[in-house]
Amino acid sequence: MSAKDGGVEEERQQEQEQEEQVVNPWEVSAKQGGKIDYDKLIDQFGCQRLDKSIVDRVHRLTSRPPHIFLRRGVFFAHRDLNEILDAYERGEKFYLYTGRGASSEALHVGHLVPFMFTKYLQDAFKVPLVIQLTDDEKCMWKNLSVEESKRLARENAKDIIACGFDISKTFIFSDFNYVGGTFYENMVRINKCVTYNKAVGIFGFTGEDHIGKISFPAVQAAPSFPSSFPHLFSGKHNLRCLIPCAIDQDPYFRMTRDVAPRIGFHKPALIESSFFPALQGETGKMSASDPNSAIYVTDSSKDIKNKINKYAFSGGQDSIENQRKYGANLEEYGAGRMLTGEVKMRLIELLTELVERHRRARAAVTDEMVDAFMAVRPLPNMFA
Amino acid sequence: MSAKDGGVEEERQQEQEQEEQVVNPWEVSAKQGGKIDYDKLIDQFGCQRLDKSIVDRVHRLTSRPPHIFLRRGVFFAHRDLNEILDAYERGEKFYLYTGRGASSEALHVGHLVPFMFTKYLQDAFKVPLVIQLTDDEKCMWKNLSVEESKRLARENAKDIIACGFDISKTFIFSDFNYVGGTFYENMVRINKCVTYNKAVGIFGFTGEDHIGKISFPAVQAAPSFPSSFPHLFSGKHNLRCLIPCAIDQDPYFRMTRDVAPRIGFHKPALIESSFFPALQGETGKMSASDPNSAIYVTDSSKDIKNKINKYAFSGGQDSIENQRKYGANLEEYGAGRMLTGEVKMRLIELLTELVERHRRARAAVTDEMVDAFMAVRPLPNMFA
Repeated sequence: MSAKDGGVEEERQQEQEQEEQVVNPWEVSAKQGGKIDYDKLIDQFGCQRLDKSIVDRVHRLTSRPPHIFLRRGVFFAHRDLNEILDAYERGEKFYLYTGRGASSEALHVGHLVPFMFTKYLQDAFKVPLVIQLTDDEKCMWKNLSVEESKRLARENAKDIIACGFDISKTFIFSDFNYVGGTFYENMVRINKCVTYNKAVGIFGFTGEDHIGKISFPAVQAAPSFPSSFPHLFSGKHNLRCLIPCAIDQDPYFRMTRDVAPRIGFHKPALIESSFFPALQGETGKMSASDPNSAIYVTDSSKDIKNKINKYAFSGGQDSIENQRKYGANLEEYGAGRMLTGEVKMRLIELLTELVERHRRARAAVTDEMVDAFMAVRPLPNMFA
Repeated sequence: MSAKDGGVEEERQQEQEQEEQVVNPWEVSAKQGGKIDYDKLIDQFGCQRLDKSIVDRVHRLTSRPPHIFLRRGVFFAHRDLNEILDAYERGEKFYLYTGRGASSEALHVGHLVPFMFTKYLQDAFKVPLVIQLTDDEKCMWKNLSVEESKRLARENAKDIIACGFDISKTFIFSDFNYVGGTFYENMVRINKCVTYNKAVGIFGFTGEDHIGKISFPAVQAAPSFPSSFPHLFSGKHNLRCLIPCAIDQDPYFRMTRDVAPRIGFHKPALIESSFFPALQGETGKMSASDPNSAIYVTDSSKDIKNKINKYAFSGGQDSIENQRKYGANLEEYGAGRMLTGEVKMRLIELLTELVERHRRARAAVTDEMVDAFMAVRPLPNMFA
């Protein structure tokens, strides 16, 4: 990146600190007492708002109703999504890339958001998908053993497969099992283009961080380039990549997009979601490390009921009278025609259904299916 | 590493700068007008002198005369060589690890030193050997393309094979072809133990260095641990490693030795050589990037004769009378009974013979032999 870019990056960082809103791959927190300001985030990161015209375009191109996460603005920002759609309209295909850092055994419902949405994209556009399990990242950041990180990645793969991905179009890999070959070659190509100072500007590393952390961004960047998957995209050097992810992952792909043209690839496009809020409200995201903030996919219907009733922030007024009089800020609820208890009951129903459906699907995922999804193999009809 | 170690490292660095002698993996230069001070280097690096008692011990244990590079002190320093010999005496085997960064097509005679010596060690101790070709390093430091780096590694492999290694005990690999699996797992384990500040202390990285350079030391460290080669050393987690190398590589292995016990491995032992001097004298090492400093293995006998006569520093006096009267500093030559021209003639003979023997051996190395040495395979009788 140019020195000028570096300066902008630093300014952004300072601005971010002053505002006390922190969003990076390792931390998401709103400024004191507030909620995440997504408009500001779009400005800070320099991505684009995903407006209704794009949603309509997706509708038209795929001939099916856009996913509710698009219609409701859960996926609210993008980078170069129009270029992907332009190419698609010309008859060019692309591939999807998403991932997960498996730091805990049990996923919470927030973790399912990118996968539910990615499945929709795969079905709607009929395109191949690569899913990266960053067991190396978690080994380094959470100080897990290599063996435990690999075990968690495999457990999480079962939850991912349970989201219904098409095995004829999907390759799941863990870094510990897959890094090497052309993937490693691309890591080296990427690393050559990023100075330590630049990495500090993007990721905020300090001198006391271990060098594993500094080596990692290239691992997350590499799947954005088709030659990292020779068994899938041999000879398809110009294939475009679309990355559905939560917006906290944007720094990785800002770096990747900067590097891409310098090593002869298209910049990956992004479609970015807001964070699944903690039960306590939109000041933070649902976090696996705070059990009271999250509904896990392993929670029983009783757990869900208790957590929602006890912890969930509804925005409702402090008495039935005031709630009737002023309402809260959500449609029926906002108009005052619904009580907090009724809203919570509807949420309990919805989440219980989602979680139980997931649990049934996951129970049906065998070790053989995991092996099959993770086999390094060609996908003969991946664009069909 | 402890803060204390870091402090010592910094002091060493400062001391080194004041003395103007610079020795690291990327630069070797004596202080102005002087030659490399190897005693000082042993103090600075904290390694041990390889004294006559060890040479005698090697003689006794292997029942064969020690290599001339041992007797003449070309390999002059070590770390924990006695522990390797203790273990060997108890009937435990070890493995050898050496390597080469292939930055140019033609090797010079200095490049052959570690390989000639390593072949002797392999034969004398009857132990397996892994040879790392750091094509990734050269791609990053010399800004070569991935493809060109891989091609050079393969060309250099032919020169290495020509040194006569036993294919039943030798595995040659290039990083671009081999990094992955348990090798990558060990890279991550190593990286977790080294902070950026520590790496700066050892290697002198700056913020303007790209992050590929910061990621590389773990790649050179990983072959020091047997689990990086599951096809060779499966179940031999405690196997010791001995690394023959030039002393400029010591920083990599100082780092490796610091990390080793923290991730459950033996520290690798080292046996370290001085530098093959430039033709112009011992103020620097023979360098592939300065054609007049080096005799290449591709030089014709005429090239060799011309370079030695034109460029070689002999220490001889400036006239025949003075040479006869004062002599130079080398045995017959030192005693004044030999003229510069006669010394040079003997050197020309020796080097021509060495280079021509190498050239014949290299011409006999086929692509199939390279493939065979580089095949990821078990070595069934590697300790026999």
